[in-house]
Amino acid sequence: MEIIRKNFKDSLSTVYSAIEEADFLAIDGEFSGISDGPSVSALTNGLDTPEERYAKLKKHSMDFLLFQFGLCTFRYDQSESKYLTKSFNFYIFPKPFSRNSPDIKFICQSSSIDFLASQGFDFNKVFRNGIPYLNQEEEAQLREQYEERRNQANGAGTPSFISPSSKGPVNVPDEHKDFINRVIAKVDSLLSNTEKTVDLEPCTGFQRKLIYQTLNWKYPKGLHVETMETEKKERFIQISRVDEEERRRREHEKQEREQEELNDAVGFSRVIHAISKSGKLVVGHNMLLDVMHTIHQFYCPLPEDLNDFKEVTMCVFPRLLDTKLMASTHPFKELITNTSLAELEKQLKENPFKPPRVDFSDGFQSYNTATEQLHEAGYDAYITGLCFISMANYLGSFLTPPRSHISAKSKLIEPFHNKLFLMRIIDIPYLNISGPDLQPKRDHVLYVTFPKEWKTSDLYQLFSAFGNIQVSWIDDTSAFVSLSQTEQVQIAMNTSRYAESYKIQTYAEYIRNKLEARHL
Amino acid sequence: MEIIRKNFKDSLSTVYSAIEEADFLAIDGEFSGISDGPSVSALTNGLDTPEERYAKLKKHSMDFLLFQFGLCTFRYDQSESKYLTKSFNFYIFPKPFSRNSPDIKFICQSSSIDFLASQGFDFNKVFRNGIPYLNQEEEAQLREQYEERRNQANGAGTPSFISPSSKGPVNVPDEHKDFINRVIAKVDSLLSNTEKTVDLEPCTGFQRKLIYQTLNWKYPKGLHVETMETEKKERFIQISRVDEEERRRREHEKQEREQEELNDAVGFSRVIHAISKSGKLVVGHNMLLDVMHTIHQFYCPLPEDLNDFKEVTMCVFPRLLDTKLMASTHPFKELITNTSLAELEKQLKENPFKPPRVDFSDGFQSYNTATEQLHEAGYDAYITGLCFISMANYLGSFLTPPRSHISAKSKLIEPFHNKLFLMRIIDIPYLNISGPDLQPKRDHVLYVTFPKEWKTSDLYQLFSAFGNIQVSWIDDTSAFVSLSQTEQVQIAMNTSRYAESYKIQTYAEYIRNKLEARHL
Ligand SMILES: Nc1nc2c(ncn2[C@@H]2O[C@H](COP(=O)(O)OP(=O)(O)O)[C@@H](O)[C@H]2O)c(=O)[nH]1
Ligand SMILES: Nc1nc2c(ncn2[C@@H]2O[C@H](COP(=O)(O)OP(=O)(O)O)[C@@H](O)[C@H]2O)c(=O)[nH]1
Repeated sequence: MEIIRKNFKDSLSTVYSAIEEADFLAIDGEFSGISDGPSVSALTNGLDTPEERYAKLKKHSMDFLLFQFGLCTFRYDQSESKYLTKSFNFYIFPKPFSRNSPDIKFICQSSSIDFLASQGFDFNKVFRNGIPYLNQEEEAQLREQYEERRNQANGAGTPSFISPSSKGPVNVPDEHKDFINRVIAKVDSLLSNTEKTVDLEPCTGFQRKLIYQTLNWKYPKGLHVETMETEKKERFIQISRVDEEERRRREHEKQEREQEELNDAVGFSRVIHAISKSGKLVVGHNMLLDVMHTIHQFYCPLPEDLNDFKEVTMCVFPRLLDTKLMASTHPFKELITNTSLAELEKQLKENPFKPPRVDFSDGFQSYNTATEQLHEAGYDAYITGLCFISMANYLGSFLTPPRSHISAKSKLIEPFHNKLFLMRIIDIPYLNISGPDLQPKRDHVLYVTFPKEWKTSDLYQLFSAFGNIQVSWIDDTSAFVSLSQTEQVQIAMNTSRYAESYKIQTYAEYIRNKLEARHL
Repeated sequence: MEIIRKNFKDSLSTVYSAIEEADFLAIDGEFSGISDGPSVSALTNGLDTPEERYAKLKKHSMDFLLFQFGLCTFRYDQSESKYLTKSFNFYIFPKPFSRNSPDIKFICQSSSIDFLASQGFDFNKVFRNGIPYLNQEEEAQLREQYEERRNQANGAGTPSFISPSSKGPVNVPDEHKDFINRVIAKVDSLLSNTEKTVDLEPCTGFQRKLIYQTLNWKYPKGLHVETMETEKKERFIQISRVDEEERRRREHEKQEREQEELNDAVGFSRVIHAISKSGKLVVGHNMLLDVMHTIHQFYCPLPEDLNDFKEVTMCVFPRLLDTKLMASTHPFKELITNTSLAELEKQLKENPFKPPRVDFSDGFQSYNTATEQLHEAGYDAYITGLCFISMANYLGSFLTPPRSHISAKSKLIEPFHNKLFLMRIIDIPYLNISGPDLQPKRDHVLYVTFPKEWKTSDLYQLFSAFGNIQVSWIDDTSAFVSLSQTEQVQIAMNTSRYAESYKIQTYAEYIRNKLEARHL
């Protein structure tokens, strides 16, 4: 189901109940880019620590826009022994909802845009019809703005806020005195004739504020004051003579309208709140960036510290599962040669795995996995869910007696919970969201700096005495070199002592220097 | 005429001849945003110096993408006493043309995107079908890459580059020796049997380089070596046995193909080069940002210094005319109340102006100015040209005898040449591209700093003794205050001497401090 600005509000209840009834959810995001910094490979050094990797992704990936969000819900139908799915494809765009709302800037990376374009991605749907959103702080700010305005407005607001004493005469700057006096004269004439309303001339925001404050103080009862817009979008104030009952009714209506406006502005974030509140298992493929973007865009700017990020993540997504990590882990790793989503899905239909029994719920579009629609977020989420089911069920084959269906709540899949795949780190397969990360020994690793003319072959040359080595480039003038034996490290250090063109440190020294540099 | 990636090459000659035959050109650009920094109003302080304004625009506007370029050519048909126009609407996108090409990142501003969306702008045309481009440096780099590759390739390239002495044996790293030896064996067997070509396995770029170098050295004649791509986009090398004539023919073909590729990569920049070379009058409306973006995107990164920018601009666009500046200048300023493009166009059809006599050239779409298509760059360029014609012709009414047609080359319009409208600067109406800028006296201006709680009304209060003042906000804690009389400056300075909450400097002091700060 495609969800854009126009049908968002009407579709929300469908989305909510799909989440409510689901056994697990699968998600996927499409972004306007991946890395605004160095090359992707420099961004993903094979010997990054989890802290380093998180810091790099935060710095170089969060200014892109998550502009398509796929959600696929999976409910297991016991009687039919099959899953029923509902797949949603949301288009997202931070349309400014009013003159004062934040004017978001985001980066596009031409290679990513070009890639999506080649897949038939519809950018007009994003930019013309994308659903807006607010993060929690923006939502709170907007709520406050509404409350403040309400308190200024004629007689409205919680009485305790507007104590009679604070309602002293308004401090009207000299240059606006004439203007305000003319408004008062108009109100006096309104109160003494038969007209019910008077429209003032369009004026500035500051003048409107003065009008609200003045009338609120001079005529605490009997008036309803409201800002309206002309066809040309000029704002003006309309003043109506009302009795107390009508005044209350109008205030109430206005409050409801404002609540509605607030909900509209919060927009797509409401879907993420619902996913979060459900506490359901959320499955993704290679999902670290999806999780980071989702939190960054719909909850709060990402924290500096990796541990704080883990904490926030556990609040937003209490149970995560990354199918790429699962496929790269025993007992799957031995069976699966290619863990990219499309290939994985294909392999998981073949022996020893079984294609999952899945049907589309009534009224939901069905995807045909034979004619792929890869890189549409809703489809990718769907495929991801299929992969999860196949792998979970495969685990059931080890039980005695074997079970062909393993539920999303099964203890069997707990070892895969909250472990997000880390791309291209040699010795740390995943980021552990609900605990401390692995700390592999790296005492066979050297940190080498050299002139920028050097090539990989120069490094091979330099270490040619040590047999097999592995080079992980950091930047133009530095790289990690992993030796095959730890004992070689000391030899390398000794030989390098008098070298002039290059410098070698042990990995431990490198980490120590880095920490010191940070504390300076 | 709409020009996208697909029809670009075929349309180029039409574009070139339209430029060639034109009397003047009108241009307009659409961008993915305007300002990535402070609010637009902080970006355009009323008392900016031209240097400050240029620096702000350069810093806060150049990371957006110029993604639609409108060009409308106007040719005067003497016999019919009317202009014939050709209007072109180019969609532009920096599609990476190869794996090594720059991966451009650009910013989008949601308010600008949303505005264009509301005007029906077609983003898919930009992102799926936009014409690529290179600036001059990127073009030179790419040319060099091709030449380098050619010199490495078998026997090709300018002989003087590949002196026989430089053709010594190739330094093949140990780990690639086996691989290269196997290639040599294959070539030897190719040379001794009846096959004409052999395809090698796909391999890395470094290996391909080694192959080229090795074969070039070992078999300077008799082989043609070329990199091909499999359907899966893997690159492999194809080696063909050829006689000298065929080798030359193939090299020649390859060189032509490369020149074609180079032209394709330079893409839209070729249109700008043609406009530039034509030396024709280029008309725009409020065109400073258009000019800056055009130079930045298709020529070179903008220089730091305003004078250098003026110099570059005069090279790229030797004659510019800004219709917004023209309309804001005597004798038009007295007649025209609103200089926004749409309003200007309307007013210039009415007395005392005359609607210009303009027709669309055969085969070119006609715009109907009654049913506006504003904010499509091609249309805006067209309208801008109409405005220029009306205003130029109006100048002719002052001649004795009056003339109804004034040509783009007339001396009458020279006073408007190379003066680009400066938005919202109180006392400097334009940036003078071909000379020094105006230096208005600002000795009635104060630079005031204060706590960030202050509002405009606090400033009015502070200077209430001096009658009319004008406030130009700089940021939260500073503003320029223009007094109505210069003599008041000294009084204000004296009274402020012991103030604690705020500080006043004369404008001259402010400028001096700023210059000093810059030289520290
Ligand atoms: N000096 C030097 N730097 C290199 C070389 N290869 C890679 N690098 C640097 O290391 C970074 C990562 O390189 P790599 O992992 O090979 O991936 P790449 O981004 O495809 O080049 C690059 O962006 C370069 O800054 C080399 O041969 N010489
Ligand atoms: N402290 C303070 N700063 C202001 C006030 N009004 C404007 N500013 C600052 O000056 C900048 C330019 O303001 P202005 O020209 O009024 O345009 P705006 O961008 O629409 O607010 C704003 O971004 C603020 O940083 C004010 O009343 N008090």
